[in-house]
Amino acid sequence: MSKFWSPFVKDLVPYVPGEQPKMTRLVKLNTNENPYPPSPKALAAIQAELNDLLRLYPDPNSDRLKQAVASYYGIQTNQVFVGNGSDEVLGHAFLGLFQQAEPLLFPDITYSFYPVYCGLYGIRFETLALDEQFQIQVEDFKRPNGGIIFPNPNAPTGRLLPLEAIERLLQFNTESVVVVDEAYIDFGGQTAIALVDRYPNLLVIQTLSKSRSLAGLRVGFAVGNPDLIEALERVKNSFNSYPLDRLAIVGAAAAFEDREHFEQTRQAVIQSRELLTAELQARGFEVLPSAANFIFARHPQQDAAQIAAKLREQGVIVRHFKTARIEQFLRITVGTPEQNQALLDAL
Amino acid sequence: MSKFWSPFVKDLVPYVPGEQPKMTRLVKLNTNENPYPPSPKALAAIQAELNDLLRLYPDPNSDRLKQAVASYYGIQTNQVFVGNGSDEVLGHAFLGLFQQAEPLLFPDITYSFYPVYCGLYGIRFETLALDEQFQIQVEDFKRPNGGIIFPNPNAPTGRLLPLEAIERLLQFNTESVVVVDEAYIDFGGQTAIALVDRYPNLLVIQTLSKSRSLAGLRVGFAVGNPDLIEALERVKNSFNSYPLDRLAIVGAAAAFEDREHFEQTRQAVIQSRELLTAELQARGFEVLPSAANFIFARHPQQDAAQIAAKLREQGVIVRHFKTARIEQFLRITVGTPEQNQALLDAL
Repeated sequence: MSKFWSPFVKDLVPYVPGEQPKMTRLVKLNTNENPYPPSPKALAAIQAELNDLLRLYPDPNSDRLKQAVASYYGIQTNQVFVGNGSDEVLGHAFLGLFQQAEPLLFPDITYSFYPVYCGLYGIRFETLALDEQFQIQVEDFKRPNGGIIFPNPNAPTGRLLPLEAIERLLQFNTESVVVVDEAYIDFGGQTAIALVDRYPNLLVIQTLSKSRSLAGLRVGFAVGNPDLIEALERVKNSFNSYPLDRLAIVGAAAAFEDREHFEQTRQAVIQSRELLTAELQARGFEVLPSAANFIFARHPQQDAAQIAAKLREQGVIVRHFKTARIEQFLRITVGTPEQNQALLDAL
Repeated sequence: MSKFWSPFVKDLVPYVPGEQPKMTRLVKLNTNENPYPPSPKALAAIQAELNDLLRLYPDPNSDRLKQAVASYYGIQTNQVFVGNGSDEVLGHAFLGLFQQAEPLLFPDITYSFYPVYCGLYGIRFETLALDEQFQIQVEDFKRPNGGIIFPNPNAPTGRLLPLEAIERLLQFNTESVVVVDEAYIDFGGQTAIALVDRYPNLLVIQTLSKSRSLAGLRVGFAVGNPDLIEALERVKNSFNSYPLDRLAIVGAAAAFEDREHFEQTRQAVIQSRELLTAELQARGFEVLPSAANFIFARHPQQDAAQIAAKLREQGVIVRHFKTARIEQFLRITVGTPEQNQALLDAL
């Protein structure tokens, strides 16, 4: 703590991202990246933009990308907000929508960045316990609140909430914003974007880091009523006019337009997830049903931290959270068939 | 205003960036981009990184870039913070350092984003008037404050404060943070980075958008005592773990390493600025002495808004601010000799 810091900074507990090792020979199953490459059309679009015009600012509104997202989902561009990864989009949503008199609500086991944003922006929150099967019970959110947020599928559990449950929540919770954080939705769920035209308080956030294989390009977006999008635009334009660079805008747009590559790679991940789940179960692991590109598993006899440490010795990295209720689980990203086999061999 | 917004959002007055026209045939002298292309080595470094590894997250700490900046300035990497353009770096500095009991101080005529950040983060501020020659008088800052910020050279005036004046300020202002925003320093000033080892409350912010010709890549950085850098890292890691994508990290680092290209292009801009200044003076304009890649000029008989409108009709865009004291000035980016001639012809 320094006398030069804003006073709140000393109490900040920053988010800790999964390790990004600099050696490339590890089997990296710790940060839920896609094991398949991005669309060749995305790389070609970036290639075409890699020229002397990098001296010029990008389009501050990223219209090209908003159009690609709007076209994919059959919505209007003024229903789309884009940012530097879904973490930046989430940050703007917390500041622009959740600074309210009543507390924000989210599950007790969820994306660990949510309480960090609350610390950054002075937002009071309450957590609601997942049930014994690690599922969100939407009726628990029937209480005074200044907003609700949860990932769907939830992280790090991978468990999916069906669209009907989200609609039930929206029917009883009409006076505050509900953010559905769909980082992993393409691996097994139905997007709540289908509901945005009917619920003006629904904001859906997605990323290109997972199902579009572009974690290295930093692009995320939100979809909702133009009125919610305007709040995000106002915050963004009061923070950084140009969060997406010229290369990211065209690469992300091209990735959205290549539906075939997207379908092929996500189906491959889904298929591998089911195989990996069966193999782990055959080795005695309990595996939660996952709709994501990772699985959340525990072994009834073996300590999770020890398994993670031993895997690491053999060059396989998975993620372990030292968090109440889930300290015996491992979060394992679904890799290629070869990577998954390396994990099974190491076990 | 929507009932779903955080209450402060309705009062936000976002920053308005200069126009980024989608037609490329305009002579674009409105947003202070460099008229020369980025280093070919920067483009080559991006090219080498443009591959399937874009599926993986970037290094959250951008170590490669921090090393390039540290090496260029002969400092340590823990004295360097990097972000998505200097606007993001400024945003984190306002939140992490300027949320104090006493008001922030900055000049009345300066970068118009400063009051916007104050609105975003609830920071009280006072402005101090530039003198009649549009110069900062550092003695005016001798008053209770929770921080001081100014660009050097100042924007949009282009006027430079010599390093001795900044050191004088640091000698009497030891209890709050002083941020020197050096977006344009390479076009004619001495960087205050030379002072960071002696003044623990000094933070210097720079960008690669101007003298490194990389506005389209979105990279900025701050240099200061590790203690100030830690505040920025804490805020950044509570907002977005990976603000720089894989391509931006390597492109920016390579740009820093290509000293020859940097020297050539900045000398060309400086030379053109002096020629353009003389030509405008010959046409009756009053031109403030500029140490930046733009000039700030007024004509004693002709209205600035009208000149800007007429230039626009002829395909030349310059920037006009409808701001008290400077509404009769035009801010004109220094272009290539051909672009500057097009401007003079249009006048």
